[in-house]
Amino acid sequence: MTMETNIRPQLAIEARWIIPVTPDGAVHEHSTLIVDAGRIRDLLPSADARQRYQPLETISLPHHALIPGLVNAHTHAAMSLMRGIAEDRSAITWLRDHIWPMEQQMVSERFTRDGTLLACAEMLRGGVTCFNDMYFFPQAAAEAVLQSGIRASLGMVVLDFPTPYAANADDYLNKGFAARDELRDHERITTCLAPHSPYSVSDKVFSKILTYADQLGVNIHLHLHETTDEIARSEAQFGMRPCLRLDGLGLIGPNLLAANCTHMTDIEIETFAMQHAHVAHCPASDLKLGNGIAPVARMVEAGINVALGTDGAASNNRLDMFAEMRLAALLAKSAGDAAALSARRVLEMATINGARALGMDDNIGSLEPGKWADLVAVDFSAIEMQPCYDPVSHLVYVAGRGQVTHTWVAGALCCERGILAHMDHAELKEIATQWQGKLKPFHQ
Amino acid sequence: MTMETNIRPQLAIEARWIIPVTPDGAVHEHSTLIVDAGRIRDLLPSADARQRYQPLETISLPHHALIPGLVNAHTHAAMSLMRGIAEDRSAITWLRDHIWPMEQQMVSERFTRDGTLLACAEMLRGGVTCFNDMYFFPQAAAEAVLQSGIRASLGMVVLDFPTPYAANADDYLNKGFAARDELRDHERITTCLAPHSPYSVSDKVFSKILTYADQLGVNIHLHLHETTDEIARSEAQFGMRPCLRLDGLGLIGPNLLAANCTHMTDIEIETFAMQHAHVAHCPASDLKLGNGIAPVARMVEAGINVALGTDGAASNNRLDMFAEMRLAALLAKSAGDAAALSARRVLEMATINGARALGMDDNIGSLEPGKWADLVAVDFSAIEMQPCYDPVSHLVYVAGRGQVTHTWVAGALCCERGILAHMDHAELKEIATQWQGKLKPFHQ
Repeated sequence: MTMETNIRPQLAIEARWIIPVTPDGAVHEHSTLIVDAGRIRDLLPSADARQRYQPLETISLPHHALIPGLVNAHTHAAMSLMRGIAEDRSAITWLRDHIWPMEQQMVSERFTRDGTLLACAEMLRGGVTCFNDMYFFPQAAAEAVLQSGIRASLGMVVLDFPTPYAANADDYLNKGFAARDELRDHERITTCLAPHSPYSVSDKVFSKILTYADQLGVNIHLHLHETTDEIARSEAQFGMRPCLRLDGLGLIGPNLLAANCTHMTDIEIETFAMQHAHVAHCPASDLKLGNGIAPVARMVEAGINVALGTDGAASNNRLDMFAEMRLAALLAKSAGDAAALSARRVLEMATINGARALGMDDNIGSLEPGKWADLVAVDFSAIEMQPCYDPVSHLVYVAGRGQVTHTWVAGALCCERGILAHMDHAELKEIATQWQGKLKPFHQ
Repeated sequence: MTMETNIRPQLAIEARWIIPVTPDGAVHEHSTLIVDAGRIRDLLPSADARQRYQPLETISLPHHALIPGLVNAHTHAAMSLMRGIAEDRSAITWLRDHIWPMEQQMVSERFTRDGTLLACAEMLRGGVTCFNDMYFFPQAAAEAVLQSGIRASLGMVVLDFPTPYAANADDYLNKGFAARDELRDHERITTCLAPHSPYSVSDKVFSKILTYADQLGVNIHLHLHETTDEIARSEAQFGMRPCLRLDGLGLIGPNLLAANCTHMTDIEIETFAMQHAHVAHCPASDLKLGNGIAPVARMVEAGINVALGTDGAASNNRLDMFAEMRLAALLAKSAGDAAALSARRVLEMATINGARALGMDDNIGSLEPGKWADLVAVDFSAIEMQPCYDPVSHLVYVAGRGQVTHTWVAGALCCERGILAHMDHAELKEIATQWQGKLKPFHQ
């Protein structure tokens, strides 16, 4: 026995394909990922791995692709309880006449915890290992995150109007910072400042948020240019489009993640690119609410880091990053260029670009030694996946979340063949059924 | 025992919801569908059904919606063997430089039978009970249809250039009619005339086809206005757009089903509506090939019967009518109207509209007494389907083909929980693997 075979890491995963995404977009055939202490230690041909390591556990995935866990760069997890409610309305009608009044009456710590738990279950089953959340009661969301085993960036939401969560901007900020303090020791949770949008936050509050973000070194997460209505109102009130207003306030920068960006002029795209701001593209929700199609191919071309998000289940109605990848790839071609946004680019959007947008790319987003072992196994053996000329193309255009067999976060198996390690299926259904009864009056 | 309880039909299916689609778009809760001799006999509340019938078999689906089998109104089934090949190219490059040369070398009876078998497996597993096919060697496709248990309308394809299947237009027609004669006694197979497209069929041949269609009372299935290139070439060659050319030849009528129709002017839409011609909308393929987005909301508004199709797996890359429904509903809203094309309308497109487009609406497309029992059960019990405020919305926006548990064609169970009644999973995979080896040289 050589010295090398004495190395006994936690886990070896042998797969038909390992697709690390970075550094070079390669597809490794018949390879093994070595995991130890929750982090990726090595990636090497399976034949070599069997020589070099004697892992405590080996998982063999002979028909699978092993990929980085998917990063859902923009969602409102707790809104899974509102899945499919008050359908077929414009974004602004939907928000002002349905969602916001409902939230004023119904949202609570329990609502947030329960809804986030349901969302975490759906996401882990579908290969999402990290999500960027914007909702009320972040501690309640954190309870669900901690129980489920998933990773999250939780927003310290700020609005300029009262909700059951907080009375005014300062109250939102104070509550957000209290949550941040309480959650700072949890390795799987980070926090960011989440001023809801240009139309719901004043200049004064934005300036305050920018100061805090600089002081604390945290990111800022907001909605931007989601609807033409938002832009028209900004022009009426401020004499300029929201992007220019935020730029004037100094917010467009490398720590900004703007969700949607459905309507972006070439100059706005250039501003984002030059200031290294990030975009969370949410194609399904933007279509469903009638917002339109974000100019993703142009944004990517300009060099913007574009991540991918589901938005909330109320406007999607899935938290399904496989569906989002396929839709993003297809939609980018709608302008007539079938070569726009290849499957490879879209897989990057759903993994490493999301990690970058959250400032977490040193730790997640690709399968490189030293990063957390946030991993997803995708089974290629179904009839629907045959034949397969290119596994990356199949991940985007053919596979669905139903093909996910294993989801690991920091080396811990959180979901195997649909069975969640830390959540009970029947309990989750009971929670959903109870809330369905309470929210039903707001449907239609 | 009353006389009524002596009635012993073949099968009773009790479901949480039965959604017949027509006549009135109702959702029947806790109801039972009675099937006898392969046809639907009754639809009534489960409590009444238990009083009135003593079926030979009862299937209880307490968490399911029972819906009509989905009708895939436009596909090239055998091209499933080319799934994901030669990706990211424009429609015309993809056809002229990749698909057609490959077909010239590789297509055969065996190719067609094997590829169609794989496609039938995928479709049955995903709730498709009938497809409208356009490919070479219809008898070979029919073998797959007969084995699998699915229903199909097989095109008698006609081109004005030679392929391994036929030498010239007359040869295509003769071979098509021979197939039609051979297949006429099979209840699950119908045939139609399938002149490929305006750019591959001459005026003379179109006139001949129209004569045959009228004589034989068969439908005509073709591609129309799929690409801007097709339109530009027609303008150069004929001095008019393809739609006007076909109208001049007398082809636009109630027995015409035109696939794609990606680019349609208001006048062309009016022509289709006035002449009662049908459209097969193929949203995924049209996006993937960079063709654009068909003006479906305007077509539906004008009164055109719009059905839904996957097109071939080479340009989709799925034969997944659930994905197609969701995409159609989302895309129709891309112009800014979130109320455009509701979930109900899209479910009609995927069922009764497809049946109408194939001239089969007396026999399939909805759950009405007298029609064939072409049925699909969709399981609503997964975490991802919770909560549920409206089952029709969930069918379109939330469910995937993974939720399909049972697929019946003419009352015969063809697929249960992914297991195909008449096809072997391992055998299908072996077939796909063999062809993958042969076709691989054409990839890239």
